Amino acid sequence: MELFESKFKESMITKVPLLNRITHYIVRRKGKQMRPMFVFLVAKMVSGGRFEERTYRGASIIELIHTATLVHDDVVDDSNRRRGFFSVNALWKNKIAVLVGDFLLSKGLLLSIDNNDFDILKLISVAVREMSEGELLQIEKARRLDITEDIYFEIIRQKTATLIAACCGIGAASVESSAEEIEKMRKFGELIGLAFQIKDDLFDYTDAHIGKPTGIDIKEQKMTLPLIYALNNCSDKEKKWLINSVKNHNKNKQRVKEVIEFVKASGGIEYTTEQMKNYQSQAFEILNSYPDSKYKESLVTMVNYVVDRKI
Amino acid sequence: MELFESKFKESMITKVPLLNRITHYIVRRKGKQMRPMFVFLVAKMVSGGRFEERTYRGASIIELIHTATLVHDDVVDDSNRRRGFFSVNALWKNKIAVLVGDFLLSKGLLLSIDNNDFDILKLISVAVREMSEGELLQIEKARRLDITEDIYFEIIRQKTATLIAACCGIGAASVESSAEEIEKMRKFGELIGLAFQIKDDLFDYTDAHIGKPTGIDIKEQKMTLPLIYALNNCSDKEKKWLINSVKNHNKNKQRVKEVIEFVKASGGIEYTTEQMKNYQSQAFEILNSYPDSKYKESLVTMVNYVVDRKI
Repeated sequence: MELFESKFKESMITKVPLLNRITHYIVRRKGKQMRPMFVFLVAKMVSGGRFEERTYRGASIIELIHTATLVHDDVVDDSNRRRGFFSVNALWKNKIAVLVGDFLLSKGLLLSIDNNDFDILKLISVAVREMSEGELLQIEKARRLDITEDIYFEIIRQKTATLIAACCGIGAASVESSAEEIEKMRKFGELIGLAFQIKDDLFDYTDAHIGKPTGIDIKEQKMTLPLIYALNNCSDKEKKWLINSVKNHNKNKQRVKEVIEFVKASGGIEYTTEQMKNYQSQAFEILNSYPDSKYKESLVTMVNYVVDRKI
Repeated sequence: MELFESKFKESMITKVPLLNRITHYIVRRKGKQMRPMFVFLVAKMVSGGRFEERTYRGASIIELIHTATLVHDDVVDDSNRRRGFFSVNALWKNKIAVLVGDFLLSKGLLLSIDNNDFDILKLISVAVREMSEGELLQIEKARRLDITEDIYFEIIRQKTATLIAACCGIGAASVESSAEEIEKMRKFGELIGLAFQIKDDLFDYTDAHIGKPTGIDIKEQKMTLPLIYALNNCSDKEKKWLINSVKNHNKNKQRVKEVIEFVKASGGIEYTTEQMKNYQSQAFEILNSYPDSKYKESLVTMVNYVVDRKI
């Protein structure tokens, strides 16, 4: 990971001093780096311990694209904070944040183009398209509050799972795996990504997350699985009350609290947790088709982390 | 161009209804389509009248990327209008405009990846990176007001000329030209792009542009060539007054008017026009290395349009 980090930093260098100052700021406030870890561990597991220069590049590309989307997300959500520090848009304004995101996106793509990593490029470009589609689908559905379970799963598959799917697909592709194996690993990553987003959505209804208050999604009229389950399993009168609460009283803290309590009482949390564990099991099933190794073991740990994390 | 338009529209279709509504809105308010025209005319000139399915795709990719950058530019500039209509960010907010731009960008790239047009992809990705770098360089330099002629030319090369260079390079690449010819056409497009941006910058100092008031660049502290020339060719006292005007009195209409008059009197307009015509001549020189044809003739017309236009 250390060598990766220095390669990643190198990949962002430009002739524009302002841009170097901003990317330097971003890199210092780095996250958990879960995505590059998936790239490396999958590459090692499927190849029996190998990885290539292409694996480093694949991980850098993923991290560049992921960073680009975070910078744009903070503009989209008008958010001032990112990982406990000021966001790029807060420090340098939206204007610059949009351009920095575009720069990081094209840098990521060029890194693969310049090295003829066209298989990696394909995997990542699909993810970039699906992420923006997923966010837009969520915005559209949030407005109408007419979201079904199917649409919820489609939204989280596109906005979150597709990039983790690309990580695992790229990990496999970087060590010359077959098309079938790349697809299998892509699917593995997708399952992890679905579980990851469901966990995130659960945090909004439970106090499990360290440092994140509950009810934010309701305030922003984001309909996630616990609420969707509650809506589908209550009386018409209760449904009316729920929809009215989210539509017209979403800024009222007491009312949001009541919605959370209603969702809890309806069994929405248990149902949602069950769905998440179901994806976790499916991910384990795929891992079990590989012989035991320390890489596989690390992947098991990471899958468990996704589901058990408190942050 | 009609066939191109229907193919272009097709390239934007998605499963997200909100997104389809927005792209439909964008396409109806289309611009002059100068960029796709360069793709087609260059393809035809260098091949002696041929063009391929790849030429259509190349033009669509360029137009997708160009549209993406316009949508992001309106967020960056906080602009409410685009081509006489409301901008995407004005109608749907910044949030959605950022995502729509990202979507169009990735759609453009996927169009070339899905068809294995890797030469085209390379040309376009370099342009995407340079455009964001150029905008950021301009923002950085605008703040410090310490811009030289060299930096001015570097900014306009990156932010504007690189995409027109990509158009002409892609036109040539789409009909299987040699690497030398692609590079020659890229250079041709770059010269046109430089002339195009210089013309745009001249509009800020002359009343030649239909419907666009003068002095906007000064108000936004954008240092363009007429002003840079004036700064380099005046007394220290005048220089101090100019810098103070742009730095501290840029919202004062009377003062901005005085700056424009000073720049005119200094010969900044003539000097800038000369530079533009110099790029125009260099572009003609490249065209003259080709035998006469109606495609070459159309390109001559277009180069003249870039320099003589009133809008």
